[in-house]
Amino acid sequence: MIHSFLMIGQSNMAGRGYSKEVPAIYDEHIKMQRNGLWQIMSEPINFDRPSAGVGLASSFAAAWRLDNEQHEIGLIPCADGGTSLDDWAVGGALFENAISQARLAQRTSQLSGILWHQGESDCSPEKAEQYGEKFSVIMEALRRELYIPEVPLIIGGLGDFLSHGIFGQYFASYPLINQALEDFARTHANSYFVTAKELTANADGIHFNALSQRILGIRYYNAFRDLKHLPDPLHDEEDRLAAMYNRPYTQTEKIKLLEHEFAVGNIDPKDYLAELAILSGR
Amino acid sequence: MIHSFLMIGQSNMAGRGYSKEVPAIYDEHIKMQRNGLWQIMSEPINFDRPSAGVGLASSFAAAWRLDNEQHEIGLIPCADGGTSLDDWAVGGALFENAISQARLAQRTSQLSGILWHQGESDCSPEKAEQYGEKFSVIMEALRRELYIPEVPLIIGGLGDFLSHGIFGQYFASYPLINQALEDFARTHANSYFVTAKELTANADGIHFNALSQRILGIRYYNAFRDLKHLPDPLHDEEDRLAAMYNRPYTQTEKIKLLEHEFAVGNIDPKDYLAELAILSGR
Repeated sequence: MIHSFLMIGQSNMAGRGYSKEVPAIYDEHIKMQRNGLWQIMSEPINFDRPSAGVGLASSFAAAWRLDNEQHEIGLIPCADGGTSLDDWAVGGALFENAISQARLAQRTSQLSGILWHQGESDCSPEKAEQYGEKFSVIMEALRRELYIPEVPLIIGGLGDFLSHGIFGQYFASYPLINQALEDFARTHANSYFVTAKELTANADGIHFNALSQRILGIRYYNAFRDLKHLPDPLHDEEDRLAAMYNRPYTQTEKIKLLEHEFAVGNIDPKDYLAELAILSGR
Repeated sequence: MIHSFLMIGQSNMAGRGYSKEVPAIYDEHIKMQRNGLWQIMSEPINFDRPSAGVGLASSFAAAWRLDNEQHEIGLIPCADGGTSLDDWAVGGALFENAISQARLAQRTSQLSGILWHQGESDCSPEKAEQYGEKFSVIMEALRRELYIPEVPLIIGGLGDFLSHGIFGQYFASYPLINQALEDFARTHANSYFVTAKELTANADGIHFNALSQRILGIRYYNAFRDLKHLPDPLHDEEDRLAAMYNRPYTQTEKIKLLEHEFAVGNIDPKDYLAELAILSGR
């Protein structure tokens, strides 16, 4: 049985980290959904824009795997960059797309959690004040439509870098959104808030960089596993990243990675067949 | 009003051409669907695999645009690599995903055509014999579910390179599939067959290369426009490709392309703001 997780929110849930800045996460037990089917996860998972990159879901899944060696995890990418909370209103395209993708996943998996990161597009005192009520309506409808009244909903905070970047003027109210997100989590069952403290951004000052996304994914996983809010950074983030990166590839993974190199034209057919024969032990 | 087109089938509909081999197609009037919403199209459109690349839909849209200067076109990517016709059975995940994505598109566009390319995974005499009947069931259900009884369905042939590549042994029966596809189109209303004659492949001998995908897209467009089968290559394929590539970028397109370069870290913030000011005429 695959344990699946719905990824919703805006760009920092989709992921904009630069893949060249961190080691890859590639694990045959970590799947992602494409066209209603599962395949081995590779980044970008949530290809909402050509600039999609590393997000938090990959290290969330890898952290889950460190504790669940025999099981499979599936990621359902439905986040969309630049979207406001109003864009996620019940009945809108983003909401309906997420419902349809989650339902397809439910055919072959147990929907086990919801991963949310959003708020940059709602950084104003007025919108922050309305955030909790609007978000509550969306989440109630989502849980009802998918028959998941009690699965954990993990909600990450916005980065403290937001007000300092070149677009900082637009994000001055980000602490109000963080407060709204945390207030929501503390007043709703099965909802947990995760801090973004100490995390850093790409040069745009808006998007978590790849390493910060990796760390944020571990924090999301801890909140999910322990069913607790995470108000402060963890002490073992680096060690757990190292554990993910040090896992040796299985034979299947090596073959799939070779197939990819061949598919994108990095290996010629003769070398591909020779390497494939070696990996397959033929 | 956006005229939208549903992309379904296997890898050669998704596209595996190498983008470095052809000029890009980027046009603010050509959209693609992501998460139920429209954005300016860029390749890969149909990101079913990490190896997704150039497909036929981009030049199909660009050819449409050469004839429709004031209108918009939207592409709905639902093709999935390696899938057999049975994988596309009514009620299956691929079928249901395509229905849900097309319905989201129908909220804001007129679904104007269906683009199909599939058959490599059905290359056996037995499967070729069953192809027409199975495909008919799928297409009837698709048209019924989406209320599009009469929109053109464009069906491309398989490449003649298939039986010569390193995996050629698996594709010996490809002419039987081509015959089944053509027979289907000639015996069903609003269905048109397009030849893959003279097109060539990547080194894998399976996937149309980028230039062939560009040409195939033009052929698909002609069949759609003229409501006619296309049994032979066109004489103006090169000229029309040149016309697509020579279109100068609009201000909006230049700004969006600049934003992308900034988002992926290719330009530092200071240079980005300076270039943006120039492009915006500020």
